[in-house]
Amino acid sequence: MTSSAHVGVVGLAVMGRNLARNFANNGYTVAVYNRTQARTDDMIAAHGSEGAFVPATSVEEFVASLERPRRIVIMVQAGAGTDATIESLLPHLEEGDIVVDGGNAHYEDTRRREEALREKGLHFFGVGISGGEEGALNGPSIMPGGSKEGYEAIGPLLETIAADYDGTPCCTYIGPDGAGHFVKMVHNGIEYADMEFIAEAYDVLRSAGLTVPEISDAFREWNTGDLDSYLIEITSEVLDQTDAATGKALVDVIADSAGQKGTGRWTVQIALELGVPVNTIAESVFARSVSGHLDLRAAGREHLSGPAHSFTPEDKAALIEDVRQALWSAKVVAYAQGLHLIRSASEQYGWDIDVAGVATIWRAGCIIRARLLERIRSEYAAGQLPTLLAAPSIAAGLADASDGTRRVLATAFGAGVPVPGFAAAVSYYDAVRAERLPAALIQGQRDFFGAHTYQRVDTEGTFHTEWSADRSETKLD
Amino acid sequence: MTSSAHVGVVGLAVMGRNLARNFANNGYTVAVYNRTQARTDDMIAAHGSEGAFVPATSVEEFVASLERPRRIVIMVQAGAGTDATIESLLPHLEEGDIVVDGGNAHYEDTRRREEALREKGLHFFGVGISGGEEGALNGPSIMPGGSKEGYEAIGPLLETIAADYDGTPCCTYIGPDGAGHFVKMVHNGIEYADMEFIAEAYDVLRSAGLTVPEISDAFREWNTGDLDSYLIEITSEVLDQTDAATGKALVDVIADSAGQKGTGRWTVQIALELGVPVNTIAESVFARSVSGHLDLRAAGREHLSGPAHSFTPEDKAALIEDVRQALWSAKVVAYAQGLHLIRSASEQYGWDIDVAGVATIWRAGCIIRARLLERIRSEYAAGQLPTLLAAPSIAAGLADASDGTRRVLATAFGAGVPVPGFAAAVSYYDAVRAERLPAALIQGQRDFFGAHTYQRVDTEGTFHTEWSADRSETKLD
Repeated sequence: MTSSAHVGVVGLAVMGRNLARNFANNGYTVAVYNRTQARTDDMIAAHGSEGAFVPATSVEEFVASLERPRRIVIMVQAGAGTDATIESLLPHLEEGDIVVDGGNAHYEDTRRREEALREKGLHFFGVGISGGEEGALNGPSIMPGGSKEGYEAIGPLLETIAADYDGTPCCTYIGPDGAGHFVKMVHNGIEYADMEFIAEAYDVLRSAGLTVPEISDAFREWNTGDLDSYLIEITSEVLDQTDAATGKALVDVIADSAGQKGTGRWTVQIALELGVPVNTIAESVFARSVSGHLDLRAAGREHLSGPAHSFTPEDKAALIEDVRQALWSAKVVAYAQGLHLIRSASEQYGWDIDVAGVATIWRAGCIIRARLLERIRSEYAAGQLPTLLAAPSIAAGLADASDGTRRVLATAFGAGVPVPGFAAAVSYYDAVRAERLPAALIQGQRDFFGAHTYQRVDTEGTFHTEWSADRSETKLD
Repeated sequence: MTSSAHVGVVGLAVMGRNLARNFANNGYTVAVYNRTQARTDDMIAAHGSEGAFVPATSVEEFVASLERPRRIVIMVQAGAGTDATIESLLPHLEEGDIVVDGGNAHYEDTRRREEALREKGLHFFGVGISGGEEGALNGPSIMPGGSKEGYEAIGPLLETIAADYDGTPCCTYIGPDGAGHFVKMVHNGIEYADMEFIAEAYDVLRSAGLTVPEISDAFREWNTGDLDSYLIEITSEVLDQTDAATGKALVDVIADSAGQKGTGRWTVQIALELGVPVNTIAESVFARSVSGHLDLRAAGREHLSGPAHSFTPEDKAALIEDVRQALWSAKVVAYAQGLHLIRSASEQYGWDIDVAGVATIWRAGCIIRARLLERIRSEYAAGQLPTLLAAPSIAAGLADASDGTRRVLATAFGAGVPVPGFAAAVSYYDAVRAERLPAALIQGQRDFFGAHTYQRVDTEGTFHTEWSADRSETKLD
């Protein structure tokens, strides 16, 4: 055997198989290996003629078939599976080889693995890959984190198989160790919020008596403008689908309990750790969670009363436009929160992530690809922003959408339609722009019951009022 | 030296000192020890005449002064301090001795410590103590978690020093290992939400042009009714305070950035882990977080526009009543979410926590003590509830408050006053009672881009639509 393969893929379930095919379709010789031999055989039988594959029946053979430095992409179940695969490879690797984890690992695991492999002279990359099965095959958005030196060897291949946006690959070096998986996690958090907002927009319109086809038309129309995005596009597709068994719209036949796999939850947990407010993402995670608590909902339906969850708009077209504005505004807030989280983590971990670069590679290939991302890229390319909301074109858009957005909220709360995501977005917007927040009262309470102290608006220092004594104020430092 | 002390307290900062004095005031002989001797001396100088204290100058002496089984309450900084203190005690303890951690430990740490000490034949208790310095001295709410056998030895002492509600002590056995600290953590999470709601109520009224004294009067009035609670009471006290330096209301002089110590954040992180929706608590944590991001707020104030954050109500009294209803409803939702979280954790860890018992001991002594808790206790005592919201008197109250609450939301969103907590509460309420949620659309999207499958409303099984092929539906199991 010659050691001629450019890259190897371990783990040939649908994502791994498609990624291997993507490499091969781009002219690379691809070594492939799966612990269960049958899967390798199946893949070669089905796709072996598409390109230059080197199927291996053992880890030794797999590693031996790769040119040096070896480039190995692991596409197995995140967690213990990844660790086991790395362990099986280690005895056969040599200094300078590159190991890529293309799964949805937690970035803390990636940091741990990167450190362990670095000590052995290997380059470990945690690479976020978004775009689903289709993207893996035809061009995903790729978010690689690892050493700069290792990127020189693996980056060109990843950039070649990534999605393309006007000639620019949707893959760029994100930063060291966990940076790539972190950015992918936040991508997914934004995706949760995006989907929740779409669901709320749909729910408000449905509650206003619009039919499913009318709502589908609204989304299709929106997809020609500022909301143009993959998720808006597929929403029309889903709404257009008729259930063969019943003749009803499929969306009316699907059980209304949403699942989740963990990256949304992680995003919120880590944001809490880093002190970054991501309430839109949190509300979208909780909304899915509520939908799945069937006992809670049964009790709620039985015992709780309120408005009828339906209303008759005076002007349907005006409502549709208001909802579009609410959706766009909320989406912008979710991106602002996600990018804030990325910036904070970048500072915390010394990753030096370029936010414009992140927006660049999200423009195509990934689930949250959207026209908005080109605007975000250009705003961040023009200069550092304390928040996306402060970007001139974004702030102007939000101002224009303010009245319509607020009408949607008043209507939804009045009609009893749950809009936790929309409400979180506007509350965040209003809190961020407030001259003065009632947090001052909270500080007063905390000082009262726990002597937690407070600062003053008019002078430096830390203060405490002697609430249980003479209520004089003490300066503590 | 005779081994005659009933109980020992290690760590004599303000909470430990007050707890030791509380034991002594109740007739117990209390051994006291602090690593820095000066603190012990100070305490004895200031309070030695209040009761029977046995000051110790070394751990050996401290442990030797206690009757068997020894009862030792650790009141040191949570984290490494607790572990170090336990380590220093261990060589001197004997089988059957009881070690109590009275700090705000993470319940996972408590589980770890309980297991470690159990293996050595010791009883370890993680005990949540709420009520601040004042409560520690005069009667806190106490939430002990540990072995039932150990509780027989330590419980009677804790019940004696706890707050009293109509003759019932605000201390009861919560459950094994981390149960007590878990319940205390959720107590704090609810406290965060409670404080956020109060802040929003204040902010809405202030934005409507009410003066600080007018708002203080409203809170004082509310405190005579269904909202009667410690936090409402101290809100009036804080609002009544005039700043000596400026002559302004103190609340206008306190900087509007709220601090936090971690238990609110933990509550949300763990709720995400357990899949329990606690959006009101999450919003209250994020609201504090937003208030502290000064750079973000500076950018927001400079660039973002919207309504003026002020409005003129047609009828001030009617607005005050609407806000009262919004506050009460939101508070109920936060309790419902917190108790849901406690029930879920109880199932997850096999703690068998009695929710009525928790409400019982929160009725006095702790920061969230409120008239509402007696109603919650009696509703849970009457039978298991899938959610507090389903309790007859609660559901009826929420129905009565629905219109006023929704008017507040419409007004606040229209005027640009941030109300993330109120909005989260109503959104949760509306989601829980919805006949149908748009989660069905989310499941359709997830199936479209990730083949995540869905269930149907009309038949068992797991389904997938072949979105990229002929769009037929496949039944997968």
